[in-house]
Amino acid sequence: MESNMIFVPIALAILGLLFMFIKMAWVKKQAPGNERMQEISKSIKEGALAFLAAEYRLLVIFVVIASAALFGISLLVPTTSWMIVPAFVFGAIFSALAGNIGMRIATEANARTAEAAKTSLPQALKVSFGGGTVMGLGVAGLAVLGLSLFFMFFTSQFMGAEGSFYNNMTIVLEALAGFSLGAESIALFARVGGGIYTKAADVGADLVGKVEAGIPEDDPRNPATIADNVGDNVGDVAGMGADLFGSYVATVLAAMVLGNYVIRDMSQTTQFTDAFGNMGPILLPVVIAGVGILASIIGTFLVSVKNNEAKEAQVQKALDLGNWVAIILTVIASYFLIQYMLPETLQMNFFGEGFKSVSSMNVFYSTLIGLAVGALISVVTAYYTSLGKKPVLDIVQNSSTGAATNIIAGLAVGMKSTFLSVILFAAAIYGSYELAGFYGVALAASAMMATTAMQLAIDAFGPIADNAGGVAEMSELEDHVRERTDILDSVGNTTAAVGKGFAIASAALTALALFAAYVTFTGIDGINIFKADVLAMLFVGGMIPVIFSALAMKSVGKAAMEMVQEVRRQFKEIPGIMEGTGTPEYAKCVDISTKAALKEMILPGLITIITPIIIGLLFGAEPLGGYMAGVCVSGVMWAIFQNNAGGAWDNAKKSFEAGVEINGEMTYKGSDAHKAAVTGDTVGDPFKDTSGPSMNILIKLTCLVGLVIAPILGGHTEGTAVASHNVEVIDALESNAKKKVKVAFKMDGDLAVATVTYETTKDGKIIQEVQEFKGSLEEVEAEVKKIKVSLK
Amino acid sequence: MESNMIFVPIALAILGLLFMFIKMAWVKKQAPGNERMQEISKSIKEGALAFLAAEYRLLVIFVVIASAALFGISLLVPTTSWMIVPAFVFGAIFSALAGNIGMRIATEANARTAEAAKTSLPQALKVSFGGGTVMGLGVAGLAVLGLSLFFMFFTSQFMGAEGSFYNNMTIVLEALAGFSLGAESIALFARVGGGIYTKAADVGADLVGKVEAGIPEDDPRNPATIADNVGDNVGDVAGMGADLFGSYVATVLAAMVLGNYVIRDMSQTTQFTDAFGNMGPILLPVVIAGVGILASIIGTFLVSVKNNEAKEAQVQKALDLGNWVAIILTVIASYFLIQYMLPETLQMNFFGEGFKSVSSMNVFYSTLIGLAVGALISVVTAYYTSLGKKPVLDIVQNSSTGAATNIIAGLAVGMKSTFLSVILFAAAIYGSYELAGFYGVALAASAMMATTAMQLAIDAFGPIADNAGGVAEMSELEDHVRERTDILDSVGNTTAAVGKGFAIASAALTALALFAAYVTFTGIDGINIFKADVLAMLFVGGMIPVIFSALAMKSVGKAAMEMVQEVRRQFKEIPGIMEGTGTPEYAKCVDISTKAALKEMILPGLITIITPIIIGLLFGAEPLGGYMAGVCVSGVMWAIFQNNAGGAWDNAKKSFEAGVEINGEMTYKGSDAHKAAVTGDTVGDPFKDTSGPSMNILIKLTCLVGLVIAPILGGHTEGTAVASHNVEVIDALESNAKKKVKVAFKMDGDLAVATVTYETTKDGKIIQEVQEFKGSLEEVEAEVKKIKVSLK
Repeated sequence: MESNMIFVPIALAILGLLFMFIKMAWVKKQAPGNERMQEISKSIKEGALAFLAAEYRLLVIFVVIASAALFGISLLVPTTSWMIVPAFVFGAIFSALAGNIGMRIATEANARTAEAAKTSLPQALKVSFGGGTVMGLGVAGLAVLGLSLFFMFFTSQFMGAEGSFYNNMTIVLEALAGFSLGAESIALFARVGGGIYTKAADVGADLVGKVEAGIPEDDPRNPATIADNVGDNVGDVAGMGADLFGSYVATVLAAMVLGNYVIRDMSQTTQFTDAFGNMGPILLPVVIAGVGILASIIGTFLVSVKNNEAKEAQVQKALDLGNWVAIILTVIASYFLIQYMLPETLQMNFFGEGFKSVSSMNVFYSTLIGLAVGALISVVTAYYTSLGKKPVLDIVQNSSTGAATNIIAGLAVGMKSTFLSVILFAAAIYGSYELAGFYGVALAASAMMATTAMQLAIDAFGPIADNAGGVAEMSELEDHVRERTDILDSVGNTTAAVGKGFAIASAALTALALFAAYVTFTGIDGINIFKADVLAMLFVGGMIPVIFSALAMKSVGKAAMEMVQEVRRQFKEIPGIMEGTGTPEYAKCVDISTKAALKEMILPGLITIITPIIIGLLFGAEPLGGYMAGVCVSGVMWAIFQNNAGGAWDNAKKSFEAGVEINGEMTYKGSDAHKAAVTGDTVGDPFKDTSGPSMNILIKLTCLVGLVIAPILGGHTEGTAVASHNVEVIDALESNAKKKVKVAFKMDGDLAVATVTYETTKDGKIIQEVQEFKGSLEEVEAEVKKIKVSLK
Repeated sequence: MESNMIFVPIALAILGLLFMFIKMAWVKKQAPGNERMQEISKSIKEGALAFLAAEYRLLVIFVVIASAALFGISLLVPTTSWMIVPAFVFGAIFSALAGNIGMRIATEANARTAEAAKTSLPQALKVSFGGGTVMGLGVAGLAVLGLSLFFMFFTSQFMGAEGSFYNNMTIVLEALAGFSLGAESIALFARVGGGIYTKAADVGADLVGKVEAGIPEDDPRNPATIADNVGDNVGDVAGMGADLFGSYVATVLAAMVLGNYVIRDMSQTTQFTDAFGNMGPILLPVVIAGVGILASIIGTFLVSVKNNEAKEAQVQKALDLGNWVAIILTVIASYFLIQYMLPETLQMNFFGEGFKSVSSMNVFYSTLIGLAVGALISVVTAYYTSLGKKPVLDIVQNSSTGAATNIIAGLAVGMKSTFLSVILFAAAIYGSYELAGFYGVALAASAMMATTAMQLAIDAFGPIADNAGGVAEMSELEDHVRERTDILDSVGNTTAAVGKGFAIASAALTALALFAAYVTFTGIDGINIFKADVLAMLFVGGMIPVIFSALAMKSVGKAAMEMVQEVRRQFKEIPGIMEGTGTPEYAKCVDISTKAALKEMILPGLITIITPIIIGLLFGAEPLGGYMAGVCVSGVMWAIFQNNAGGAWDNAKKSFEAGVEINGEMTYKGSDAHKAAVTGDTVGDPFKDTSGPSMNILIKLTCLVGLVIAPILGGHTEGTAVASHNVEVIDALESNAKKKVKVAFKMDGDLAVATVTYETTKDGKIIQEVQEFKGSLEEVEAEVKKIKVSLK
């Protein structure tokens, strides 16, 4: 039976994109401000586009090489179609597109937000949040559209072929993994490149401008100021857009793959049929994602403030309202969708525990766990990074004794924040797995990501407001304009930190789901770290996030130093620059950031992609599993540590703007304590905007690479042989392209079932491995029956 | 057949202790300097002893509670004797004693070194290294003596009893694990408490004294100066002594436990007999340790310089000579000992691969791998932390743009240094395991630790020289005295960093050996991270080193701030203090450090000890294994990161003393770049002296706690049932206290072997688990024969 269910997410994705175009047109219709503002906005836009163009030129090389490698894999492996190559290329293009759309609207919206802020805070929020909405809908719409269309196309290609439903669907999903791989690879480069760009410019501009020359942020006399604003767009906007696009696709894909396993497990009991082409569990995650777009659109209408004198709290409240409405609508829809699309009872094979009956409501509860844990991790993140809370106040207090104690306190806050986050996260794994196996884990992650459109709208309006402030400053607009954009910017900082908490939680769960898919796919018997090679690779995996972060930070440090020297040189050599009569050479600073970002993003990117391939080929599937686990465990720690330390330092510095009480004395900007806090913030910058957010992508991409190369790995790293009994094969019950045959046989007269895997070594020798099904006679008979029935 | 081999390590340990007393008497005979020097030395000694006394009072409470818990376990578990309690108590006492001896001699040697430095650098080296030698021999002698005596006593108690050799030896080694647990617990508290003490004082003294008031280090006008010097002794000396004592014992113990598994494996092929009471593989590590003491004594004679004008390089060369001679002598002795004490061919059961024949020479090659990797990791460590090398120069360059870029560069150096270290470490696991299984891994670690006496002598002379410099400064001796002690101190800093590289490598290998012992001991079927609960606990384990470090750093920050405020208060309130006419209240600063250290060491210590117990009891043996692996992986990364970042910052700061070239200009102390470097060093202080070195103990202690509670855990977390064939049990081949029975039986007429484990649930129900031995008929028959023969 063919199902039309796939058209639901397609329709919702198109609706999202339509709404995006409407919003885009609306933003562009807003007054663009005076000539000076337009000129600045144009410089920023041009710098950003020039960087993206250069970045894409470099990435084309990568895409070509990777495509050739994927094509090679598809020739070698029967479960991998050559269509993985176009899927990969489109994943890359869509990802770049998502970043591009966001960046273009952000560079349009900045001056318009500043212009709106001249007269009205509510209007400024509307414009900046409008820009964010365009980006959010662009990312989510493209992701759901791309996934759905490719899925529809691949099913039409492969589902009619010979072989079991499960095997054909495996080919579909393996090809679809190419789309996700393309998206995530570009995301990695975009995030790292953008992160290096923005922080080199930011750190460079701040160190000489703010600290040495004592001129305010975004002062037009600072030569690095345009580069700084370009950086906000290529890093915080384009980088983040590509990042979330990749996350979103990977999460939905992982859930689809695990849905296929659910169908396979259920087919072993009875013939699995449903009204959705027998693929309800596979379609469910993508339908939920589509509904999330609709819910997000509704949510965006609720984000507004009425009062021109509104402060941070009201703006925050408006955003929270929109966000929660979107989440709650998605939850309600998910409840009905799960009831509608899943069978009332699912049969799931729990690793090592055998089959269990699981109510479809358990899947819903898993999504609730996902949302609850995501929300709680956000609360934890907010606690550790918000103004006025103990951790930030603690850093403020420690600033009074200098930069060193400020840094120690900030590092400690970041480290400490791992405690509750990891406990919650472990609880999410444990809980959602207990409820509905790894499918439950995957849907918990999907639920977190379902309202990506809204999340991203909230995340992206921050940098737009930040840039609007920059435009206002550089165009020397009246003070109240900057004050209004500062309110928006400050709220944006909090939402950014909270968004990061959500992102890391969902990324980690997604990585686990991919990890589960990997283990099932390779057919290995779990990942046993009591084997020396697996354990050794667990350590190597644990080192990768650390070295990745080191490279990212090092790059920022290096580029920032170049920037500092260039800015110092200009201050010294350009006559009248400090008096505002000489014009700084902005383009030189843009150039430094661009070159550094492009050069420095290559090594960490390649390490991420190539290391798992080398380990897989050299050591086999199980050690690669150990490596993946190492990357996940270490990556989660370093992500939380770096994001929260960076966020806390940032707000500790901000605390001085309103003044803080240290040892009974009010202390303000310009004090020694404030200078110490600025140092802390500068250290935190690459933490929270370069290396920290890259961790998400690193762990997901590692697992995706593993999943894509899984079919070419040896499978089992060891075998066991059965005792040579008098075996009479009754029936080959199931076979698939992985050369796995399930046979029913009589052993010494008793009925038994075994899975036999054939592997061919390089010299053509056949290695045979057997996994016996063990159980009482009744159980064995039941098992034989199940398999027979499922094959009709 | 009884063996007298155990008397060899006992004799060598006694020899080491005798030599220690001779050296101690010699040091005390040296001229103690003028009255002022003696007075200062006395203040330091009194402060340090007062701290240790207060620390021990607190630890007595811990020892009593832990003893009660251990006694409880011994009542519950048949393989655990109540004698684990005295072993634990003595382990704790010996550990404290080792720290105490070191600290006493160090506080005696400091003024004497300064006095010797008045006339002669060679003599100053002789005195300070003499002090270090006393400590090294004290630690190694006590460790080998304690282990050997308890082993001898326990074998006399348990080896005569009914039951197999293996089971009785398990009881012996389980009791001996108590000794190690006692030593390692005290080490943790001593390291953390001492680390907090020393860094609170150091950071506090530096921030106000050096940075704010601009007076030199160790200036008698600084009220925190005595506390600072006390700190060097309680942290770098007593803390390190307890640390290495614990490491040494744990490493030897782990190798002994794995030796017992080798004997068990071999007993399955043939009757295992040798000339060492059938316990050659168990005795080998402790004999090697004894020989290491002798080799170290010989090595110490070679450490001397002739030339009064010697510089760092000559001193370093002298130390290297002694060190390498000790190592080479140990290697040669090991070669002969392995040939002598092990059978030519060992039968080892490789997990998942079955039995393999392993030449005893493979064990020797494993020790070579251990030494080679240890040496290479030291080279890597030295590269990342030494003066004049690229990483440190890089931090120096980054200091010119301020504290922020200095910090970023330092963090990046620490992170980057994980790369080669972890690759080497993974290679060591892989290589030594391939050669000789986990016994090979354990002996690789033992080889690294064999010359602990020499290593510690080299490590401990640094703080003594540092203190001698302090005494010289405070007593206002002539400049050349300080110059000479500075040479020694500077070499001490390098050796300390190198020693840390060795320590972390050996600790990680030891932890692995303990981990292997744990898995074998609990009888679980490996640690499979594809199970959700195991995976969740892997994440929780990964978080522990981070949160531990956070707590340690936070404590240092808090205590340092109190110290800063006290010092500021004294500078303000005590008249004439800056002119040298008013006397600072040193005792108040000592008091602040003491109280802070005692209060703050409790939480991290308890987290380390209690968390594995909770996880083991709540989730069972396999999730606890996941937790242990998480702690190890994350702990190794954070140890390397923190130690090397701290070491690099320290030497970046030191670089300014001789002057460095930055952008073509020579830059010296007092420059802005130097101030930035001081900030970096201050951040690095708790990294390298508090949280970093604690990681070693954390991972070993976690594995030790796991090993000790292993018998009370449920064992298998899941079971498989055999098909109900026509089974006729022929013979119960082996049984042990863990209710495990190996049976030979005929299944449908065919011969088979299975291991049956009985578990009793709370309500008395018997759960039966079966692991079948699979193989061809011939293999099964061979297996039955092996077991039968081994049981006679």
